[in-house]
Amino acid sequence: MQEDFHSRLVRPCKRAGRGFEHGMGNGARNQGTRKSPRHCMGCRRNRQGADDKDSRKKSRRRGFKIEAPAGAAGGKMALILVRYGELALKSHKVRRIFENALAANIRTMLGSAGIRAKVWPEFGRVYVRTEGIEGGGGDNVTTALRRVFGITSISTVTETTAAPADIMAAALSASKTLTKEKSFAVRCKRTGNHEYSSQQLAAQVGDAINNATGARVDLDSPDFEISIDVRDKKAFVFTEKIRCAGGMPLGTQGKVVARLQNENDVVAAWLIMKRGAETIAAGNSKYFEPLVAWGLNYSIKVETLSYADLEKLALENGADAIVTGETLDELEELEKTSLPILRPLVGMSEERIAAKAKSIISGGI
Amino acid sequence: MQEDFHSRLVRPCKRAGRGFEHGMGNGARNQGTRKSPRHCMGCRRNRQGADDKDSRKKSRRRGFKIEAPAGAAGGKMALILVRYGELALKSHKVRRIFENALAANIRTMLGSAGIRAKVWPEFGRVYVRTEGIEGGGGDNVTTALRRVFGITSISTVTETTAAPADIMAAALSASKTLTKEKSFAVRCKRTGNHEYSSQQLAAQVGDAINNATGARVDLDSPDFEISIDVRDKKAFVFTEKIRCAGGMPLGTQGKVVARLQNENDVVAAWLIMKRGAETIAAGNSKYFEPLVAWGLNYSIKVETLSYADLEKLALENGADAIVTGETLDELEELEKTSLPILRPLVGMSEERIAAKAKSIISGGI
Repeated sequence: MQEDFHSRLVRPCKRAGRGFEHGMGNGARNQGTRKSPRHCMGCRRNRQGADDKDSRKKSRRRGFKIEAPAGAAGGKMALILVRYGELALKSHKVRRIFENALAANIRTMLGSAGIRAKVWPEFGRVYVRTEGIEGGGGDNVTTALRRVFGITSISTVTETTAAPADIMAAALSASKTLTKEKSFAVRCKRTGNHEYSSQQLAAQVGDAINNATGARVDLDSPDFEISIDVRDKKAFVFTEKIRCAGGMPLGTQGKVVARLQNENDVVAAWLIMKRGAETIAAGNSKYFEPLVAWGLNYSIKVETLSYADLEKLALENGADAIVTGETLDELEELEKTSLPILRPLVGMSEERIAAKAKSIISGGI
Repeated sequence: MQEDFHSRLVRPCKRAGRGFEHGMGNGARNQGTRKSPRHCMGCRRNRQGADDKDSRKKSRRRGFKIEAPAGAAGGKMALILVRYGELALKSHKVRRIFENALAANIRTMLGSAGIRAKVWPEFGRVYVRTEGIEGGGGDNVTTALRRVFGITSISTVTETTAAPADIMAAALSASKTLTKEKSFAVRCKRTGNHEYSSQQLAAQVGDAINNATGARVDLDSPDFEISIDVRDKKAFVFTEKIRCAGGMPLGTQGKVVARLQNENDVVAAWLIMKRGAETIAAGNSKYFEPLVAWGLNYSIKVETLSYADLEKLALENGADAIVTGETLDELEELEKTSLPILRPLVGMSEERIAAKAKSIISGGI
């Protein structure tokens, strides 16, 4: 049995262990009917480990507003706004853990792609400041970020102060490709105290763009959208929103061992990684590569694997469950295991599994 | 513990049992990597039991072309073409088992809705001849058929001979609502030997409709579509295709016991029913009703359920697996069971599960 150790996205917490009873999940809908206590899959409280200790301390001191770091020297800088989802009902504390894990995973993913960047959570978003995104490296950054689980969408933004004149200048610059044949809309969101409402700002910016370009306003189905996010003393202007994978950041939902012996297993592991579980891949190395592109950082090459082998690996590595790509019409004979076996494909159609397998294995996003 | 026995959709086969080694599934993609033999979840070979014995014999005698039965007396008749999916790679034999199970389930579902109908498989489709679909009962028939797993879409059709004149008359009658302001397209599929090609027929019918109504032909994005399916000596003309649930017919993929203690459990059971497993629901009766609408026919009311209780029920009822709606962040402490536990929600996002739960519980389709 050979072992491959990639750099780990999120360091495991020393307190991690099965049965540790503080959970991260929002299971409110089911609580009334639960018999046994929920156990969290590994310790989530301090999931980021030592890496983010300093940033957490800092964020506590400053009420969770970390100042944007100065960019790395040289090259054209670009600022990317990263949106995440699935946290509507989570507590402030859980959001913070999630944001820090997401920021750490973004740093690792950009690092693997050779992209220098500063990454920090702020205003309920995560911001990425890279070099050279406008100099041809933009596609690489986008590709890397689209493969970070937990991100729902990204936008390259122009940062200004919250002063209307500055916002106007940025919006005019962003809409300079507009011509009088085109239609456009200005969308504005605002958080904090300002001398203007978001409607007033949108109307003012809309007038200015109309005067400058001759393009007409169409709020229902515009050819072009200019979005303005005003957050306290800052504002962000952007024109494009790129959809990403969604899900939860790797490392925020416990640890699993995933069997990788066929294409279905790849789909199963991918789905569980997307739910945020730190994943140890075990099996045929040709199936590791598609998942490494999505942040898989620990894999074990091995020829054949029984449930007993998988269980041994899981217990050795402190994993809480085993993942396989079995479907309903091909369940293996059950060998008793002391860990739950997760089979995320049992409720999916063959067509959907095959399409997903094709997309993941061909390196699609 | 009270027991509810509904009429069963498909009678269990006497030869059913775990470990019986003829499978129905198409697991070709994974065969090379399989260690233990695939076991089929219950006997699928004779899944229809005695009910369809006669029709199977008949179909063998006639090379699987069962003549359309004469309709029940009285009332306006309507013929519905039922399409099914997920069988592209299956053998002829498996398709036959699937078609017979689907026909039996359609009969039961229409019967429960108080709709008299003849149902028979023919030409790789299933046909339903009902009374009164045009007299106001059409919506009931559609609602009932949209809740039969295995059906991908349905169309109310006009049946004619394969003679061009007959097809033309049916197509003209079906397009009588067309006006000269509208555009239309004629789509034609043909199986068997005829004196015309499908292109020739479509062009001829298109000309006739254009002459009669003044509507113009638009093959790319027509307002109205007239479809013609020519199958040997018959032809079917229709203008609407209603999307249905898809999946596999209940009873073609083994038997499971599903825990029904919360909304997530309902979603999990629904997904496994959609994969074709005959399902025994156990738990809180308020969660049974949404699934009864989808053909759930066996349920056991019980206050609280441990894995051990579920296992006992499963073994008593000859089920091959246990289904629960657990998600990744709320796995129960594992109690050892001798049966696989299926958790189809582990790979799904909270949003998707909640949306699915809302749709199923509100009786949506």
